[in-house]
Amino acid sequence: MRAVVYKKPFEVAVEEVPDPRIQHPNDVIVRVTSTAICGSDLHMYEGRTAAKPGIVFGHENLGIVEELGDAVTALREGDRVVMPFNVACGFCQNCERGFTGFCLTVNPGFAGGAYGYVAMGPYTGGQAERVPYADFNCLKLPEGTEHENDFILLADIFPTGYHGAELADVSPGESVAVFGGGPVGMMAAYSCLLRGAADVYVVDRVQERLTLAAKIGAIPIDFSAGDPVEQIAEQRKGDGVAKAVDAVGYQANPHGTKHGDTTEEPATVLNDLIRVTNPTGMLGIPGLYVPSDPGGVNRAAKRGRLGIDFGKLFEKGLRLATGQCNVKRYNRYLRDLIIAGRAEPSFVVSHNVRLSEAPQAYEKFDKRVDGYTKVVLEPAV
Amino acid sequence: MRAVVYKKPFEVAVEEVPDPRIQHPNDVIVRVTSTAICGSDLHMYEGRTAAKPGIVFGHENLGIVEELGDAVTALREGDRVVMPFNVACGFCQNCERGFTGFCLTVNPGFAGGAYGYVAMGPYTGGQAERVPYADFNCLKLPEGTEHENDFILLADIFPTGYHGAELADVSPGESVAVFGGGPVGMMAAYSCLLRGAADVYVVDRVQERLTLAAKIGAIPIDFSAGDPVEQIAEQRKGDGVAKAVDAVGYQANPHGTKHGDTTEEPATVLNDLIRVTNPTGMLGIPGLYVPSDPGGVNRAAKRGRLGIDFGKLFEKGLRLATGQCNVKRYNRYLRDLIIAGRAEPSFVVSHNVRLSEAPQAYEKFDKRVDGYTKVVLEPAV
Amino acid sequence: MRAVVYKKPFEVAVEEVPDPRIQHPNDVIVRVTSTAICGSDLHMYEGRTAAKPGIVFGHENLGIVEELGDAVTALREGDRVVMPFNVACGFCQNCERGFTGFCLTVNPGFAGGAYGYVAMGPYTGGQAERVPYADFNCLKLPEGTEHENDFILLADIFPTGYHGAELADVSPGESVAVFGGGPVGMMAAYSCLLRGAADVYVVDRVQERLTLAAKIGAIPIDFSAGDPVEQIAEQRKGDGVAKAVDAVGYQANPHGTKHGDTTEEPATVLNDLIRVTNPTGMLGIPGLYVPSDPGGVNRAAKRGRLGIDFGKLFEKGLRLATGQCNVKRYNRYLRDLIIAGRAEPSFVVSHNVRLSEAPQAYEKFDKRVDGYTKVVLEPAV
Amino acid sequence: MRAVVYKKPFEVAVEEVPDPRIQHPNDVIVRVTSTAICGSDLHMYEGRTAAKPGIVFGHENLGIVEELGDAVTALREGDRVVMPFNVACGFCQNCERGFTGFCLTVNPGFAGGAYGYVAMGPYTGGQAERVPYADFNCLKLPEGTEHENDFILLADIFPTGYHGAELADVSPGESVAVFGGGPVGMMAAYSCLLRGAADVYVVDRVQERLTLAAKIGAIPIDFSAGDPVEQIAEQRKGDGVAKAVDAVGYQANPHGTKHGDTTEEPATVLNDLIRVTNPTGMLGIPGLYVPSDPGGVNRAAKRGRLGIDFGKLFEKGLRLATGQCNVKRYNRYLRDLIIAGRAEPSFVVSHNVRLSEAPQAYEKFDKRVDGYTKVVLEPAV
Repeated sequence: MRAVVYKKPFEVAVEEVPDPRIQHPNDVIVRVTSTAICGSDLHMYEGRTAAKPGIVFGHENLGIVEELGDAVTALREGDRVVMPFNVACGFCQNCERGFTGFCLTVNPGFAGGAYGYVAMGPYTGGQAERVPYADFNCLKLPEGTEHENDFILLADIFPTGYHGAELADVSPGESVAVFGGGPVGMMAAYSCLLRGAADVYVVDRVQERLTLAAKIGAIPIDFSAGDPVEQIAEQRKGDGVAKAVDAVGYQANPHGTKHGDTTEEPATVLNDLIRVTNPTGMLGIPGLYVPSDPGGVNRAAKRGRLGIDFGKLFEKGLRLATGQCNVKRYNRYLRDLIIAGRAEPSFVVSHNVRLSEAPQAYEKFDKRVDGYTKVVLEPAV
Repeated sequence: MRAVVYKKPFEVAVEEVPDPRIQHPNDVIVRVTSTAICGSDLHMYEGRTAAKPGIVFGHENLGIVEELGDAVTALREGDRVVMPFNVACGFCQNCERGFTGFCLTVNPGFAGGAYGYVAMGPYTGGQAERVPYADFNCLKLPEGTEHENDFILLADIFPTGYHGAELADVSPGESVAVFGGGPVGMMAAYSCLLRGAADVYVVDRVQERLTLAAKIGAIPIDFSAGDPVEQIAEQRKGDGVAKAVDAVGYQANPHGTKHGDTTEEPATVLNDLIRVTNPTGMLGIPGLYVPSDPGGVNRAAKRGRLGIDFGKLFEKGLRLATGQCNVKRYNRYLRDLIIAGRAEPSFVVSHNVRLSEAPQAYEKFDKRVDGYTKVVLEPAV
Repeated sequence: MRAVVYKKPFEVAVEEVPDPRIQHPNDVIVRVTSTAICGSDLHMYEGRTAAKPGIVFGHENLGIVEELGDAVTALREGDRVVMPFNVACGFCQNCERGFTGFCLTVNPGFAGGAYGYVAMGPYTGGQAERVPYADFNCLKLPEGTEHENDFILLADIFPTGYHGAELADVSPGESVAVFGGGPVGMMAAYSCLLRGAADVYVVDRVQERLTLAAKIGAIPIDFSAGDPVEQIAEQRKGDGVAKAVDAVGYQANPHGTKHGDTTEEPATVLNDLIRVTNPTGMLGIPGLYVPSDPGGVNRAAKRGRLGIDFGKLFEKGLRLATGQCNVKRYNRYLRDLIIAGRAEPSFVVSHNVRLSEAPQAYEKFDKRVDGYTKVVLEPAV
Repeated sequence: MRAVVYKKPFEVAVEEVPDPRIQHPNDVIVRVTSTAICGSDLHMYEGRTAAKPGIVFGHENLGIVEELGDAVTALREGDRVVMPFNVACGFCQNCERGFTGFCLTVNPGFAGGAYGYVAMGPYTGGQAERVPYADFNCLKLPEGTEHENDFILLADIFPTGYHGAELADVSPGESVAVFGGGPVGMMAAYSCLLRGAADVYVVDRVQERLTLAAKIGAIPIDFSAGDPVEQIAEQRKGDGVAKAVDAVGYQANPHGTKHGDTTEEPATVLNDLIRVTNPTGMLGIPGLYVPSDPGGVNRAAKRGRLGIDFGKLFEKGLRLATGQCNVKRYNRYLRDLIIAGRAEPSFVVSHNVRLSEAPQAYEKFDKRVDGYTKVVLEPAV
């Protein structure tokens, strides 16, 4: 079968790879019908990780169960399923407490595994795939092809955005500042509104994103026009917000820079969160920070050490919560919101393309040009 | 000044009463501009309580601060404020934990106080009023007269409906059955939707209420047409709901009865909640149950003892939470949703009338005729 | 192999039964070294359930892994393990939220399964056993034989008692009344103290139990001497308690009755909980209530409908939580307390006997004579 | 009356100061019988803050109500009371949510107030004092003089230590590393044990503290002997801990330094917390960090910006919570534990001295010599 293979920085190719096969009685094989490109794939694509050429990308997957191991109980051939990007066992100390993003079993020596991702275990990404602990890892969907663009987002970005709102404990009537208007940030703002937040600000510098934010009922803040914290304070008559979400991570750009400027200031968003949040507030941080960044701006940043305004954070009595999303905590509920017609996250999908067009799609998405916000590949078409 | 005075069962009058005055340095006097009639006033109106003739009704009040005691810190003359129906001190063991509906100070010998309500302490209801512990009990509103019909609902029914959702811990993506489509039930359903519930059922037998429920995005269930639990199960292919809210209380009517039929079956709704909710679910019960009901259907009911299907409740591992609303826990957040334009609870208000029309308004609201859903009296007009 | 087999009311026998065998790739076979008799076995023993002759008893089991199915990942032959009495799959909607006592997979048509228990699924009890979903259902213990009497209690009563404290959210500095001083009640009181409760009352009428309660630092209340709620109020200068736990269930005896008197009043403890708890408090109810009781005191009780003082419960704004224990939520933490030497629940074990002595042990435990508080059977001896 | 007055770095004097007087109807005047010296007083004493000469120290106060303002409701002359070090109004947006350490009323322009502390509002410290919002700020104690050394610790360090455990959500059966064995660290470790933690490590370099830690059941770790994280990992066979508490703050000393060495490394403890805690864990940080430190080790530290290993923190999915203690959240419960005989925090008090001996006591406490761990001044003696 064909798959998206990483060749070198800024280059992927669609190549023949071996078909997946049942390796354990709890495995199933899924024929993938939709697989999306994730912003975190770009970290590998840009050579900002230790990913080696040859790795098959793709951790956002939806498809049809084709083959089942002997021990699988709850699934049948033909079931339509979506898989959390995290691979998890369901029975270790972390999984049993709901922290499936930090499974201790599937990636020995590390807490957490994923499909098609550097250092996240032996789980080939993408187009067609083997799902371990399938009873635990597959979420069943209604039969048919309806909502395909909504359901594919349950693999990662809708739950991950929601996770940002959850980490900050965003509650009805509260004000929230979401930093980052990419797919995850947009899903975070959307989730805040779904949870009943009163005022939701989205901070970005890309015009299409700011426009989209306004469309879903958020208030756009353009940091290319200056300090976003001051802009928010001005709109709120000097007040800050109750909660804030960082959907940017370590590749943050400084205030006042324009779209396309790649200058980085890795702690800018974190320190903005500290400034913009009122005393007693909470910071939800789903945006990625890494303990080792070969391209870091200085020696400390290269090993993930950042200059944080901790004195101010303490004085305000802030709390913060981090980490990759435990997709299973949320995907069932978000699926039900889609089925009930109360959530339609697919508004964030900009392109559905054939698998063969993956190389161009990666390139345009990486440059954020031609409106490439979120791309879904369709291997079966 | 004039006020609504209880004369005898099914009769109130508008009469002259003494003006309120500052009795304690922490008091303020508020000139009431809106005061609503509550479903719980009807318990007194119908003679189903120990309320004596002469009591001044009115625990849902909004107005302008006119006079301040010497110790008041945070208010100024002219401030527009809405008061929780609960009167609370702010410093007793219950208030300091947020249980302001169960204040141990304001009504000695009992946990909890209110304006203009039998057995709830020496706080005259209604039209113009003295507010004790005013710094604690007044919630400031934006100047002007905007949103008057929304803000008046912050005194009781919007927070009380929201309380139902909170007691059941209604969370995004969940299914909920709300029993009762009166003002509180409607606010409960509205709050569930604001909090991101997926499917919300509203059970009632009055056609206008069912229509209104559908209008806000809930699913109406008419129990005059038969067992509501079976109707919900049918719609859900045999499944129950994750959560349920009782916004009816002890004056519940049996399945199959029509609007106007006053037959009562006090535990019907509670037992329906137990039946309709899935194992591990939660029941939120803001609907009133009383330890002493002179009009109870039998000896046990007269002292508040009801036949509950506790074996089933235990087998399902259900949790339930009860009690009058701690308005202060929610009113600030709900106010902010109104100001942000994200909540507009006034859709439930059916009539705004002059104070002098109170007697007729009570009568029609009590009979649920002519579309009398929720009445706001306007003393100043 | 030999096992404890139910013959008829008040009679069990030790008989040869077929050896267990691997039936599914996720199974393991455990050679049981300790298996305890539970108070809930007595419901079957006394003929108060629909249990048929021939059922093998025993849902509290600890032993050594002897044989493993092909799909088992985390266990090895020779591992010492203790099993929650609940059988659970780990991947259904309830298990994934931690409600392993309400698994939707292992006992089709019902939420929850157990070993050796009527209506709880096809899981043979006792002496030697097959464990389904073994990776999920086995908790590993330190090698050797140390703490055997402590660890065996992790199968049920220590977590179940702890569950009572958790359901009532017992927190440091609070006062608690625990009704019932049997094994579960004693474990509940012990857990309240472990969690930092200030004053813990244990209500019973059996002298040995009251003495044991005092020994662990609780305050004994003898209800054979009169109304326990009044006794507690007297000790607290008129105050009630913040929280209460029902470790008795539906076979409750009235105030003033003596040990041996089998008069039942099924809602007595529930209504005492409502009376003894302060407004805003919580009731934790691990004590068993059933939807169908052939021996119930009246027609309503026979189908699990009890007369509850719901008016009083509402007036006080109480919350209550019920249901069998989700053992997996707690067993790992309680195990670690035992290993650290900070908990030693074995103080509640009164007798360790050979399997062959099971019939006499059942009889004496059922009558609560000769100090039979909690019996551990040792098949291997 | 006499009070402890700050003269210049490393010098305080006992001097005559004006008697306090009622300034607002909600004030009371308290005759202080016990007032303790706090570690945070040393920041001012050492000249590490902007405190000006003339400030009266003392924010840990216990005494007898002598005079009451007209609006005070719940107190009587002669009541024995202890005051939280935080001054709070009880009715602002933060107080009403329980964040009394971040009151928006009592110290305009800043969130939070205290007695006798630089930049914390116009509340004179110490010996005799005016208590604003007295109904809210006074916690009543049993009459008499019993437990004086326990109750005085309710003003600050017992709740503050407990706050550390609460911020990290320390739960029964968990392992915890507490950094810092001073009074607050010792109270944190003690609180973890009260809450049922399994293994509690206390990291310090002062021998008396390590000995005291062992005495209360914690496991001492001496960081003067090398990396404490490695020492803990070694004891735990390579594992980390579930939770960690920072009771040191910004004046932290590096690994391997001896008692008396004043070298500082302000982020050392924070980064140790990140290293020692297992993925999914929580960090509770009651230890003080400041946004402005004139004596900071470098330019960034002077403005409270510290180099934090945020990449590692994110990878582990850690959560952290900070801020001064909201004493009122805990003091009532901790008082009840003392009264019930279940907590005796006075073990940490090393000296009770007359007020006149304050200057020497400050000096010795600051140098941690002669066993000066915690000093209580007794003005009345």
